[in-house]
Amino acid sequence: MNRKPVRVAVDAMGGDYAPQEIVKGAIQAVERDEIEVILVGSEDAIHRELEQHDVSGLAVRVVNATESIRDGESPVAALRQKPDASVLVAIRLVKEGQADAVVSMGHTGAVMVSAIEILGKLEGIKRPTAGTFLCGFAPNTLVFDLGPNADCKPRDLMNFATIGSVVARKMLHINNPTIALLSNGSEEGKGNKLVREAYPLFKQSSLNFIGNVEGNDIPLGKANVIVCDGFSGNVMIKFCEGLGNSIVEWLRIRLDKRLPQKEIDAIGNDLFALTHTVDVSGGAMIYGVNGVVWIGHGRSKAPEVADSIHQVKLAVEANFLGELKSELGKLQ
Amino acid sequence: MNRKPVRVAVDAMGGDYAPQEIVKGAIQAVERDEIEVILVGSEDAIHRELEQHDVSGLAVRVVNATESIRDGESPVAALRQKPDASVLVAIRLVKEGQADAVVSMGHTGAVMVSAIEILGKLEGIKRPTAGTFLCGFAPNTLVFDLGPNADCKPRDLMNFATIGSVVARKMLHINNPTIALLSNGSEEGKGNKLVREAYPLFKQSSLNFIGNVEGNDIPLGKANVIVCDGFSGNVMIKFCEGLGNSIVEWLRIRLDKRLPQKEIDAIGNDLFALTHTVDVSGGAMIYGVNGVVWIGHGRSKAPEVADSIHQVKLAVEANFLGELKSELGKLQ
Repeated sequence: MNRKPVRVAVDAMGGDYAPQEIVKGAIQAVERDEIEVILVGSEDAIHRELEQHDVSGLAVRVVNATESIRDGESPVAALRQKPDASVLVAIRLVKEGQADAVVSMGHTGAVMVSAIEILGKLEGIKRPTAGTFLCGFAPNTLVFDLGPNADCKPRDLMNFATIGSVVARKMLHINNPTIALLSNGSEEGKGNKLVREAYPLFKQSSLNFIGNVEGNDIPLGKANVIVCDGFSGNVMIKFCEGLGNSIVEWLRIRLDKRLPQKEIDAIGNDLFALTHTVDVSGGAMIYGVNGVVWIGHGRSKAPEVADSIHQVKLAVEANFLGELKSELGKLQ
Repeated sequence: MNRKPVRVAVDAMGGDYAPQEIVKGAIQAVERDEIEVILVGSEDAIHRELEQHDVSGLAVRVVNATESIRDGESPVAALRQKPDASVLVAIRLVKEGQADAVVSMGHTGAVMVSAIEILGKLEGIKRPTAGTFLCGFAPNTLVFDLGPNADCKPRDLMNFATIGSVVARKMLHINNPTIALLSNGSEEGKGNKLVREAYPLFKQSSLNFIGNVEGNDIPLGKANVIVCDGFSGNVMIKFCEGLGNSIVEWLRIRLDKRLPQKEIDAIGNDLFALTHTVDVSGGAMIYGVNGVVWIGHGRSKAPEVADSIHQVKLAVEANFLGELKSELGKLQ
């Protein structure tokens, strides 16, 4: 295929290991894919990092930003007080058409608020969302919302379902994805107030709604898109990671001297990956803003940064945003 | 010790395998502990089951009840229409002082509603609750609420914490149990609306409150009592079971022919038990009603029935109910 390389703006100052690991990851990404990376942040700091690598001939350029937002700052206040913060400058590049997507490992709330403020929300979307596989045992099951929206209205859950449905179609290549509500019982009428009120909306919609599923149905992949409020989703994804850690540790002791150490390590690593899907993918896309935006884990190192850049490249090439807009248009 | 044996009323007609497995389990319990069991239900059916066993000399007696409540019936309607249902008769034995505790594997909602109606709620308790270990990796961590209360107010969470604190002291023998709120972030101010509003109540209380914990903190046992709404708790405990199943299955394939089959089975069984704490214990106590009441899993077989009876015996002997009343009295 002959097309213009995807241009990714990367917030070089965001994340626990910024700018070192961010710059390193960006270089790895450019080496892997035919893309252009724009590193945004303190020019001096970024150039110091770039000097550690051989970047001759690589499509990496630097855009200066004099400020950065730290963890613990109020997102809204930080944006007002630091108009030249790296995350804002990076997102503005997308707004101005100089970049096709943005990746930040920085302050989650700040990335979210900046993306909404600068890029705006898609028509029909009140609250952008984030979602992905909850565990590797169900690779065809996406869970929305996994965090940004702790308190939801029934209408928000419908939005998550619509977005999830497009993600499942475009990114997982599932033709008519099944949609379910996460609940405390499978029968209609079960659930907390939110789920009970959302149920009839889902039923009346054009979504391929299959009803309620329970917590144990998630690893079984009983639906392609499982919808819940961001509080439940966040608690669950972290519980999945924690339980995975405990089981890996338990197995290491249990298998000790019963199998070669290399084999135990491989089992441990695989099980870790199966229970740490967001960790392994380095973060998650924000859906519902008018642009391709990736919020990475603060603790991401170079490989996760490179993977994140790869993910947004795929999303841009799949014209995910255009599809979502047209899908939302049909709902209006 | 020389004390009167604990008398347990058992709903012989409740559960998927009633009365057969219920009667069998009750006999196992009487053989194990110095207790008296009162089997409540259709006299004919119970006697038919008893005839299958050698019960001579065992402290088992039968109280007749002409009706029973089936799954799917509306609890409230069933109670009105079937005043002689086995679960009602069994709970009345506690109310009348003829039994010290009651165990039912029947319709969860019906047991809950009957217990509240017949025994009443403890002073200061608006909504009785159920809680236990969420997973075996944190045997000193109880999670409340695990299901009965899908929608909660901040004051309900305080009640769960108080109850959990007494359970941790009396049943786990932890002197000054630590209490935490389950949230989507550890800092104060994180959480959904419910958690954010409950936080200051917890902070001002006399509880040993250590703040918010996240999903991954549960298997680490970061607090002795972790409090959440029953929707989140229910989704999480079922997710734990489902994830446990998937991992056990995955390990069986992964370890196949690498270890003796017997050893693989043992690892699978142990991991199953670690991720199915409620399943393994056969159910959970209801806390907050004025009596010792155990709601078992409908699918319980004889060993779970026997364990459930053993659990309520321990609760009666520990004078759990008296302790809880006095603790709640101090809060008024």
